[in-house]
Order: sequence, then C-alpha cells, then structure tokens
Amino acid sequence: MPNRRPSDLETPVAGGGLLHRRALLGGTIAAAGALSAAQAQDPIGLGSPLTMTRPGAGFSGYGAPAEWAQGIRRLTPPASARPGTGSSRTPLEALEGVITPSGLHFERHHNGVPAIDAAKHELLIHGLVKRPLSFDLDSLRRYPMVSAMRFIECAGNSGGLTGETIAPTATAASLHGLVSNSEWTGVPLSILLEEAGVDPSARWLLAEGADAAGMSRSVPLWKAMDDAVVALFQNGEPIRPEQGFPMRLLLPGFQGNANVKWLRRLKVTREATYTRDETSRYSLLMADGTTRVFPLELGVKSLILKPSPGLTLRGPGVYEISGIAWSGAGRIRAVEVSADGGRSWAKAALDGPAAAKALTRFRMPWRWDGSPLTLLSRAIDETGARQPTRTAWKAQFAPGQSYNYNAINAWAVDQAGLLRGVHAT
Amino acid sequence: MPNRRPSDLETPVAGGGLLHRRALLGGTIAAAGALSAAQAQDPIGLGSPLTMTRPGAGFSGYGAPAEWAQGIRRLTPPASARPGTGSSRTPLEALEGVITPSGLHFERHHNGVPAIDAAKHELLIHGLVKRPLSFDLDSLRRYPMVSAMRFIECAGNSGGLTGETIAPTATAASLHGLVSNSEWTGVPLSILLEEAGVDPSARWLLAEGADAAGMSRSVPLWKAMDDAVVALFQNGEPIRPEQGFPMRLLLPGFQGNANVKWLRRLKVTREATYTRDETSRYSLLMADGTTRVFPLELGVKSLILKPSPGLTLRGPGVYEISGIAWSGAGRIRAVEVSADGGRSWAKAALDGPAAAKALTRFRMPWRWDGSPLTLLSRAIDETGARQPTRTAWKAQFAPGQSYNYNAINAWAVDQAGLLRGVHAT
Repeated sequence: MPNRRPSDLETPVAGGGLLHRRALLGGTIAAAGALSAAQAQDPIGLGSPLTMTRPGAGFSGYGAPAEWAQGIRRLTPPASARPGTGSSRTPLEALEGVITPSGLHFERHHNGVPAIDAAKHELLIHGLVKRPLSFDLDSLRRYPMVSAMRFIECAGNSGGLTGETIAPTATAASLHGLVSNSEWTGVPLSILLEEAGVDPSARWLLAEGADAAGMSRSVPLWKAMDDAVVALFQNGEPIRPEQGFPMRLLLPGFQGNANVKWLRRLKVTREATYTRDETSRYSLLMADGTTRVFPLELGVKSLILKPSPGLTLRGPGVYEISGIAWSGAGRIRAVEVSADGGRSWAKAALDGPAAAKALTRFRMPWRWDGSPLTLLSRAIDETGARQPTRTAWKAQFAPGQSYNYNAINAWAVDQAGLLRGVHAT
Repeated sequence: MPNRRPSDLETPVAGGGLLHRRALLGGTIAAAGALSAAQAQDPIGLGSPLTMTRPGAGFSGYGAPAEWAQGIRRLTPPASARPGTGSSRTPLEALEGVITPSGLHFERHHNGVPAIDAAKHELLIHGLVKRPLSFDLDSLRRYPMVSAMRFIECAGNSGGLTGETIAPTATAASLHGLVSNSEWTGVPLSILLEEAGVDPSARWLLAEGADAAGMSRSVPLWKAMDDAVVALFQNGEPIRPEQGFPMRLLLPGFQGNANVKWLRRLKVTREATYTRDETSRYSLLMADGTTRVFPLELGVKSLILKPSPGLTLRGPGVYEISGIAWSGAGRIRAVEVSADGGRSWAKAALDGPAAAKALTRFRMPWRWDGSPLTLLSRAIDETGARQPTRTAWKAQFAPGQSYNYNAINAWAVDQAGLLRGVHAT
C-alpha cells in the first residue's frame, strides 16, 4: 500500500496525527490498487467473474449471514456445570454503525433462557393498585406502542478494568462486550399502570421474570411513569428468547438486569423490595465503607473499536478512528479523541440523528506515523457529564467494587501496529 | 374484552373515530383481564410457571427468532424454472418499529444470489478517471465510513394496485412488501471517485453487479458525489449475501435496483449507458406516449400496517393505528390519517428521531364503533411533496405502467372487523 505524503487536506487538530474531518475527502487513504495501463484500457477484458456465468441461489424465508462472516459470533463462556449462568458478549469490533443484530446481542442469564409458551404467558400488575390486571401477549399487542433505539448494558460490563492487569489477548469484545443496541418497541408502562390505577402512596415497583432465577429488581415509580416500556419487539421482529421473549421490561439507560426479561409481574409497592439481585449484586460499595443502593442509571461512556486489539494497523498512513459512545442520562453531546495518551484532544464527528440512551457512532481521521502511542476517547452527554479517568473513577469506591465502570478506555499501539488494552488515565 | 364508554381523554380529531393522541394515556384500551378478589390478594399463590422451577437453556454464538415467531418469514415465490429470478417480500404487518431484520429484508434478484468469494472480489473504478483503481474488501474497510438508516424499495413495489381488481386475500406484505429499512454503513463513493480523479467532462457512472444478470444501471454523477455509499455493513454486521455481499451500491431514495448488489465496477462516463435494465424495465411510459427515462428518485409514500388485512379487529373499542412512511426526497414531515374514506384527516404522531430517506413509524389512537369504513394515510415530505390519489397518479401514465407507484393506500374495514385492500382515491 502506498504511503503517500500528507496532503493539503490534512490539517492536524491534535497530537499523534489526529486530522481535521475534511481529511476524509479524497486522496488521503490511497489503499486502492492501481491498474496497469492495459488493464485500465480494458478492465472488462480481464474476464468476468465465474458468478456472472451461472445462475445464483434462489429465495429464502429467513436469511442468514454470509459464510465469510460466520466467525462473527458472540463470545460464549466455556462449558460449565451451570450452562445457563453467565454471559455471552457482543463482538463489538467486528460490527459497524450502531445497531446490534439481534442474533449478536449480549446475553446475561442467571439461570438460563426459559422456554416460555407465549399463549400462556401473562403479565400481572398488582400490589398498590385499584384494579389488579393481567395482560396476555394478544391484549398487550392491542395497546399503543412506541419505538426507540436504546442500548442495554450489563452493570458488570468493563468491570475487569478495575483490576491492575489486562490480559494481552483482551479485545474490545472480551473487555466491553456486555453492551448492545437495538430498536425496542413496546407499550409505555405508564399506560398500563394508569389503567390499573396506582395508589398515591406508591413509590416503587417490583419487577420479576419468569426464569428459574426469578430475577427481581426494584424500579422507582418515576422511571416506570417516564420512559419505561414493556417491550415486545426488538429490531422490528418479536423479541428474541434470550432477550426476554415474549416480553421484557425496558428501562432506558438503567443497569442491564433491571430490564427484567421474561417479565411476569409488576408489584406496585411503597418501598423498594431489596431483592437478592439488588443487594448481593449490582449495588456499589463505596470508598467510605457505605453501600450505594439502586445505582440504576449508567454513566456516560465511550470506546474506540477501530482500531482495537485484534485489528492490527497495516503500516503508517491514514486511518479512520471510530467507535461507540452512550449515556444512561440521555444523548451524547460530543466525543473527544486523543492519540497522544491524553496530552491533546480533538472532537470526533458523530453519525446522526443520534437517539437518547442509545449507542452513537463517532469517527475521526488519523495519520499514524508508525510510532508507538496511546489512543483514548472520552464522551460528554447532554447533561454535561464527562467520562472520568480510571483513577478518579476508582477513588470513589472500595477496592474490588467493579459495577457501573465507565472510565476512559485506552489502547496502546506499538510500532508493529499491534494494539492492546492499557491503563493510561 | 370490555367495551368501555368513551372517556374524557378521548377528544375526536377527525371523523370515523380518530382520537387526540392524549387518548393514548391511560384507561381507554382496557384490553387487560381483571383479577378476581382472591387472585388480586395473592396473585403469586396462583403458582409459579414451570419455567421458574428448572434451569433454562444456555448460550449461543448467534441467536435465532423465537419458535413462536417462526411463521414470520419472507413471502417467497412459488417454485419455478428460474428459481433465482423474482422477488421475496418483507412481512411488513408482522413487524414493528422501522428496522427490517436483515433476514427479512425483501429480495429482488434477476438471476439469483451469486456465491462471491470475498477474498477475490474487487471493485473497479475506471472510465473517465485519471487513475483507474481497484479495491478489495480489505482496502475498502480501511476508508472512512458513514452509517445511516435508509429504506430500499423496488420500483415495482405496489405496482399491482394500478390494476382494477385487488385479490381479497391480498395483505400489506403481498401488495407492498418490496420495501425494507436498514442501517447501512459504508464508504462514501465521493471519496473513492476523488481518489480516482474524475474527468471534468464526466456526468454519469455505469454501475455493474457480479451476478449472472450482470445488473447494470446508470447513475448521475451528482448522486454519486452526494450521498451514495459503497455499503459493506447492514444493520451492524457484514452485508447479507442476498443484499449484495460483499458490497452494494447504496443510492439513498433511488429505485431499488439502482442500488446495485455484488458491485464489481463503476465506469465513469460522459453519457448515461441506457442498459437493458433501465430501458426494458424501470422507465416510465407516460400518458402522452413518451418515455420518462431515469425516474430514479422514489416518491413520498405511506402505509397503514395496524390494522391491515389479516389483522382482524376484535370488536368495537380503542385501537392504535400505526404504519410506515418514507420518501426518496428526504425526511417525512407529516402523516395524515383518515378513518372516513378521506372526508376528514388528522395528523399522526411520528416516532423519532426520524432519518432522511428512511422508514418513519406513525401512530394514531382510534375508537372503532363497529361500523364499516375506510382507512387511508397520506404522507408529506420535507420538500412539501404529498402522496397523490390513485386517480391523479394514474392520470400521469400510459395504461399498464406500474413503476414508482406511490398513491394513497386504502383499507376497507367491514362490520366483522375484517380488512381488505380497496381503491378509494
């Protein structure tokens, strides 16, 4: 690949080779092959590919990925005595844009994926309500719906980075693959609660799943009346079994497991229930020895995916840096990138229109000169919240507390173009 | 299901029972079941579902739809002597939101799906350029990319409605299922053309696919330099085989087959090429006997999916009307719905943020009183273009011309709650 000289188009905007976005316009990548004069004169004479000489395959009712892409799979856990307990991770660095195909959405199960008979499944709303109600799938489908792009992230995502060592083989997926993004469609929970008639003394709900873990989380009533949804569809089609078929509670921006899958009941309560799943896990042990309970809203976060470990740079030249940013509090306002370990930063371009509480793709042109350096990204959301450094993040918590990790991520690039995760902030 | 009286929340906004959108807020649907006093006191004592008593299934590398949803498939053509020629249709009325799962994206092939070896596939850019270039998949992946939601619609979609009769069994999918919507990611074509150096005399491109039909279309240079993309990813993952793997030309808002799949070359030319695929088909025979060539940009269009034929109304009461709208010219500005055959209209709510040249979901509450009526929708795009009536649409063209059909669609509802397609405008 030709290593061309920097052109006029390449205005540096920060150290380490970050370029102005007009560097994207023409002539700076030059990864193409040139054709010989003979080829250029008659490129068609080179011969048609075989695929043009015989009919191709016919139609299918439900398509599948290209064979070439069949290595793009969730990172599943090793075989164990409890095969349905653990998580599988989204292969983030193999994907582009912001939608996670439903087949690659991360999984986190506490006792496997239940095989629910949709015809028999009911959602109960009971507790402090005037009219306890039950909803089957058919009746829920009759209600008004709303669709929105939303991320779901496990509260344990990226938690390994609280430790001192990072495995040299760690990838974006293995470190951060417990976040995915879908278009979710369902019935606003506020409609169902108003039909049931919530008692004025109520402040919380208990949400319970129909899985063998009986996953149970307390949800503040304000959230239930705000943007919570009983989701029936994921990326256009009925929600997938491992995402809660036939219905899951969707709490945009909240800790993943509060988005209770296989939702079977919502009990309206005065106080939070302090279930096993929110006391033994998913609470935050603070530096002063206290516990912060119900740390439900996830922080602002970002991650460079191109390049990232496993995607080796093929020599000096111009590349696009791109990645994803998200916040539990709303829209991403900006993402800044550093290619010199944090000494200087420049603002990335964002693909739009970006939805609130959804992954947002950022992009930035970059000329790598072949020297070792460290790539960082930091996001700012519409509330003005910024991603903390790892040091500042850790200072809040007791040693070993690893939930809700959202510190700035760092990839070191060596002179061979290999990347690996490092602690740099 | 209780048929409750209209509540205070129900302000009519047009004839036939169309309601103000605040009717969505509480108590008007009442499709839920009430619990008995004993049940309400101890709904949990009703017994846990079996799924809570035994561990569920484990993890998978690539998930699949729920068994319950496996009837949601593309409408494939009957077996024929040319199994790869024809189309399969997206089951629009079984989907929600705006994303079409990649496995359900409509297909239109002129000689089947070629099995392309991605490692050997090359895209040539040649013709009136300074530097003829070839790009393999690896080099294209190095270039800057852009992601956007975009619809693709076959120019032949809905064309059957130009005829006088509509089969009583026709559904939204069978009439209109040649439109789908994905997040497409790829390299802006302008970057590749600038690298090749387009001759100032050039005005057109010829785009050719590597399929056995050698699908070839002429593309105006202004479009190639505007928002055209060489798409490599669809809904996050590598583009599916039946959508053009490893790469397709994406021309947002243009006739479907101009978005050439399995793209193998782009020849920069002075004039349009007038290929077989744009003269024998996809041109418009006008009422005055002339032919309109290159009618590439598709018009503004909308379609009610809930309710629609096959989705029977279950008695009088409140329902949500919802559907999809799109325009080849840009964003959808508004969608109006009529429940009285076009005598009165009211504006629907739009799910947002809506992207340009992408499906947009509209929603409207509606109290059906049980009497026969006709449901219509009409969209207006950001250029101010409105969907024509069928009469006005047909008046432009010679009899039998059925490409680029975008007239107002009508569903008749009978007193049993059954729907069917009719000509009403």
